[in-house]
Amino acid sequence: MFDNKEKTEIAALGEFGLISHLTKNFKLLDHTSVKGIGDDAAVMDFAGKKTLISTDLLLEGVHFDLAYVPLKHLGFKAVQVNLSDIYAMNGTTSQITFSIGISSKFPLEAVEELYQGVMLACQQYKVDLVGGDTSASKQGLVISVTSIGYADEADVVYRNTAGEGDLICVSGDLGGAYVGLQLLEREKQVYLSNPNIQPDLEGKDYIVERQLKPEARGDIIDILKELKIKPTSMIDVSDGLASEILHICTQSNKGCSLYEEKIPIDPMTYETAREFGLDPTVCALSGGEDYELLFTIKQDDYEKIRYNADISIIGHITEASAGCNLVSKSGNVHELKAQGWNAFMK
Amino acid sequence: MFDNKEKTEIAALGEFGLISHLTKNFKLLDHTSVKGIGDDAAVMDFAGKKTLISTDLLLEGVHFDLAYVPLKHLGFKAVQVNLSDIYAMNGTTSQITFSIGISSKFPLEAVEELYQGVMLACQQYKVDLVGGDTSASKQGLVISVTSIGYADEADVVYRNTAGEGDLICVSGDLGGAYVGLQLLEREKQVYLSNPNIQPDLEGKDYIVERQLKPEARGDIIDILKELKIKPTSMIDVSDGLASEILHICTQSNKGCSLYEEKIPIDPMTYETAREFGLDPTVCALSGGEDYELLFTIKQDDYEKIRYNADISIIGHITEASAGCNLVSKSGNVHELKAQGWNAFMK
Repeated sequence: MFDNKEKTEIAALGEFGLISHLTKNFKLLDHTSVKGIGDDAAVMDFAGKKTLISTDLLLEGVHFDLAYVPLKHLGFKAVQVNLSDIYAMNGTTSQITFSIGISSKFPLEAVEELYQGVMLACQQYKVDLVGGDTSASKQGLVISVTSIGYADEADVVYRNTAGEGDLICVSGDLGGAYVGLQLLEREKQVYLSNPNIQPDLEGKDYIVERQLKPEARGDIIDILKELKIKPTSMIDVSDGLASEILHICTQSNKGCSLYEEKIPIDPMTYETAREFGLDPTVCALSGGEDYELLFTIKQDDYEKIRYNADISIIGHITEASAGCNLVSKSGNVHELKAQGWNAFMK
Repeated sequence: MFDNKEKTEIAALGEFGLISHLTKNFKLLDHTSVKGIGDDAAVMDFAGKKTLISTDLLLEGVHFDLAYVPLKHLGFKAVQVNLSDIYAMNGTTSQITFSIGISSKFPLEAVEELYQGVMLACQQYKVDLVGGDTSASKQGLVISVTSIGYADEADVVYRNTAGEGDLICVSGDLGGAYVGLQLLEREKQVYLSNPNIQPDLEGKDYIVERQLKPEARGDIIDILKELKIKPTSMIDVSDGLASEILHICTQSNKGCSLYEEKIPIDPMTYETAREFGLDPTVCALSGGEDYELLFTIKQDDYEKIRYNADISIIGHITEASAGCNLVSKSGNVHELKAQGWNAFMK
């Protein structure tokens, strides 16, 4: 994962030396960033706009497995996961704080790789790293990310404002991150039983990338602005489509009908799921970690969006009493559940 | 630490159920809080003021020992430690996010106790809990806190703006948290060797509280506003006086003279340090965790502050070439070092 020939003990730098070393190449670029790392707190100026804030905690052994996640990818992904929440408010991302707890077994070069991923994310999404905390950890690697963004009051989109008849849309495709994880888990087991066997990920780049290097859909927010569409509700897909649409419906006090045939699933996701004996639709509904945006729009906005290749219309919002349902390809109606596995496997 | 008779498995609630259960009694009170928990991100409106943000990561076995830290105190302290950074910018605190990673051995009642401490801190400091993340942890307890605050541009105080001749001031008294920790560590060892011996903390309430339940000095920020004093630089004392004044001097490119006899040390801290064979001044310089405010003021502000019982003037800023020094009670000059132990023990 990192070159074992070069190992620098973190203790040699000390906490302040480590922070300074890791962050010295992060320059402030966003116009809302006034003061970044190096004081008690960062200072931002949002000039009357609403400030958005979101935070995630990622723990080794729970959210990631260092056996197959390269540290650079992990740094990149940790930032993406968190930026995704700001986009899900229809906001513009502007700053992050990034904190780590690291065990003494981690050499400096490993932490540098992690921060290279953070920097890549900052550059690609034009966000500033403005703070964080660096600590020794007696347990595994701990990562905490907080994202800050902003939006005009009129532009903020909540989860609880979906209206009856609204169209349900989702960006990109779903299920890939979950199927990619199955692939990585399988190769890890093969490797553990025989370290001489090389991982067989040939031709599976897309779904492996969906798992290891997801990209938060800030571009969809830009597209919606260009199309002059303000979603009536929005959430990001971190826990799977079923769980997310249930959040929107519950908080909006509405029901929904999703159509299985409309759910966007990449062919590679589909084929690989089948190889594993998994139902691709279930992977999309319950797999999670896709970090696509799930949103509802007014029917009047249908024409603006119908030919957009990046956005699929997968159903519509109903009255609450109709419940939350999936219409299968064969026309059967299934009640949606947050843990969709049982609902479909039986 | 919690009543073992009542134990509810967290798994029974699920992640969303747990968040909802723990946070349902937190009401938004600050006028800048627009939307709190329950969406992808919190929404705040600072109406043109500068936004301040600070974050801390606290790990079991590194930052706290559950053997002697009651969970309610831990929740309270985790918030204090982080609010302290916003005060150190001369800001007003307004929101926090609070994230936890918990192992399955933690029953719901234990997490509730932790959140009771968070709520107490929110109520006492009038800040809103607006977000967080709740995760399973395969390691120990992990806590991540982010504080948000605000200030007028003209009021923000940085670390790098101390001027030559400025007076160095500190709030409250120092060293107590460190000596309190020694006391708790000793009683833990006694308990481990014989669980029938009750802890002997008789008459030591003040220093035990300094360690277990520190209070961030938002009141000092109010006092300075009333006195119409804007500090020329400020930092909070988390790592000990020596480390903090060196931060101010290094970043301001200045030196300093501190006077040992002026450093405020509570009599109980002094006596208990002596019982442990420790130099009370070293405890103040290097102990840390006092969460007092260290700041510099112009000499013109001397008359406004000289009789304030909560603020001590302990030295002055010099030109950089004079170095950073402590003048001992006997008149000897010692160079200040961030790890002050060796400098004084030799």
